[in-house]
Amino acid sequence: MKTNIKYYLKEKGRLVEEALDRYIPKESEMPSTLHKAMRYSLMAGGKKLRPVLCIASCEAVGGQADDALAAACALEMIHTYSLIHDDLPAMDNDDFRRGKPTNHKVFGEAVAVLAGDALLTDAFRVMTARSLRRGISADVILDAIHDISVAAGSLGMVGGQVVDMESEGMEIDLPTLEYLHTNKTGELILASVKAGARMGGGNEAQIKALARYGECIGLAFQIADDILDIEGNQEEIGKDVGSDAKKKKATYPSIIGMAASKERAGELMEMALDALYSFDKKADPLREIAKYVVERRS
Amino acid sequence: MKTNIKYYLKEKGRLVEEALDRYIPKESEMPSTLHKAMRYSLMAGGKKLRPVLCIASCEAVGGQADDALAAACALEMIHTYSLIHDDLPAMDNDDFRRGKPTNHKVFGEAVAVLAGDALLTDAFRVMTARSLRRGISADVILDAIHDISVAAGSLGMVGGQVVDMESEGMEIDLPTLEYLHTNKTGELILASVKAGARMGGGNEAQIKALARYGECIGLAFQIADDILDIEGNQEEIGKDVGSDAKKKKATYPSIIGMAASKERAGELMEMALDALYSFDKKADPLREIAKYVVERRS
Repeated sequence: MKTNIKYYLKEKGRLVEEALDRYIPKESEMPSTLHKAMRYSLMAGGKKLRPVLCIASCEAVGGQADDALAAACALEMIHTYSLIHDDLPAMDNDDFRRGKPTNHKVFGEAVAVLAGDALLTDAFRVMTARSLRRGISADVILDAIHDISVAAGSLGMVGGQVVDMESEGMEIDLPTLEYLHTNKTGELILASVKAGARMGGGNEAQIKALARYGECIGLAFQIADDILDIEGNQEEIGKDVGSDAKKKKATYPSIIGMAASKERAGELMEMALDALYSFDKKADPLREIAKYVVERRS
Repeated sequence: MKTNIKYYLKEKGRLVEEALDRYIPKESEMPSTLHKAMRYSLMAGGKKLRPVLCIASCEAVGGQADDALAAACALEMIHTYSLIHDDLPAMDNDDFRRGKPTNHKVFGEAVAVLAGDALLTDAFRVMTARSLRRGISADVILDAIHDISVAAGSLGMVGGQVVDMESEGMEIDLPTLEYLHTNKTGELILASVKAGARMGGGNEAQIKALARYGECIGLAFQIADDILDIEGNQEEIGKDVGSDAKKKKATYPSIIGMAASKERAGELMEMALDALYSFDKKADPLREIAKYVVERRS
């Protein structure tokens, strides 16, 4: 029987949400404004793609979902901090995210910057908490933290965001666009898959195969995002349609056209599936996620 | 013979600077603007109190300076990111720091936010790099990262910054001020001392004694800062004198008076020295730092 991917995403997403609720200080804890702001964006009901990938990858190598839970939460915290900072007036200056006013619109710019900082910092607190290590080798945890911090740092996500800003309104070529997407989105998705495989006790060959899978769906995800920005439904995607064009951002469709973009996304999905050929049915959720990433409507 | 503290600070400071130069991508690496901005603030010649404390604490328990070097650099990166974000227009809106224009004045607000984000993230990259673990137990490294991330997060430094902003222009009492200082500055100084002791192979009793030392000098440091803001020399401290009063920030002198503030700083220094009573001369640099923290002119 095929994995029902919608059910899987919902079930694992709930697992992550419940854990985040335990790991992040309550709104009543001082400073209350800060914890409110952190929770506001963290609990805004995003897709939770990164944490679910982390858990699915852990399960694919035979681990338990709970083994990957701390890393999964850390990934969602890092992703959420990056959205809060990207939305700031000095950056993309966006008013809506996930169908709600952006963090700085509700809490002000200063608190939004600090809520992002705290989420990023607390991601590493969660990954190193003794109570959450579950007997996993400390060396494995250090390696996972290292992968994630490389992917999120100046040579990964933050670097991608800088290049994205610098390219706004400029003509860029396909290699530059792929560099940008790989860094801004792809690396953290790749790190999510790798971290899950590590936490689940995967061997080097498994981690390598899953990394190939992660690379393909990371890029496919971004191409699908570019397509959705043109063809999507505002209500479904929770933000303005056509915002890339408005900001004169280079996208796959704007550089290689819509048809070629869809073809490229499909190819990447096939390559992702190929990377999983040696895995048994425990990798079915990963297979379904690869299809979901390309075929999703939001 | 007493440790020459100026020489010690300079020597260890140079060790940290050289390591930071190796750990942070070169300015030529893409994205160049980002790496320039990170290096601009990181290499601005601050006191390097946190990294030097980390190293001195490592040496006090019999470790080598190099054992603490990755953690020391991470602490300086975290401290520097917090200064970049604190200086932003949405926060303290400061134009000068360490005698130079602030990061956002040179690179713009967006890059300043991102340079801070990258420094914070890369701190954890450095602490987990395989090439820098020096055979130290992975469990010990995880514990040190945990201490540091708790100290820097929503219940530590970032939380302190939020309360600091919220209290501006308000009458606050001494307990609130101590809470604020403990969180905003004290916790990370305490974590610096603890991380060094862990990396040097300190036992639980030693780590506990050093933590007591760290708590005392953390608070003493902040009281001395408040005093310097009134009595200091602008050229020596590298920022505007009287800026707290201008911003109507509550300080020790404004709440308990100048004489009582100096007395309290002196008491804390004595308590810090007492905490070291069972340590031999390898703790002399820590003893001298305790005096330096209170008696410094900048």
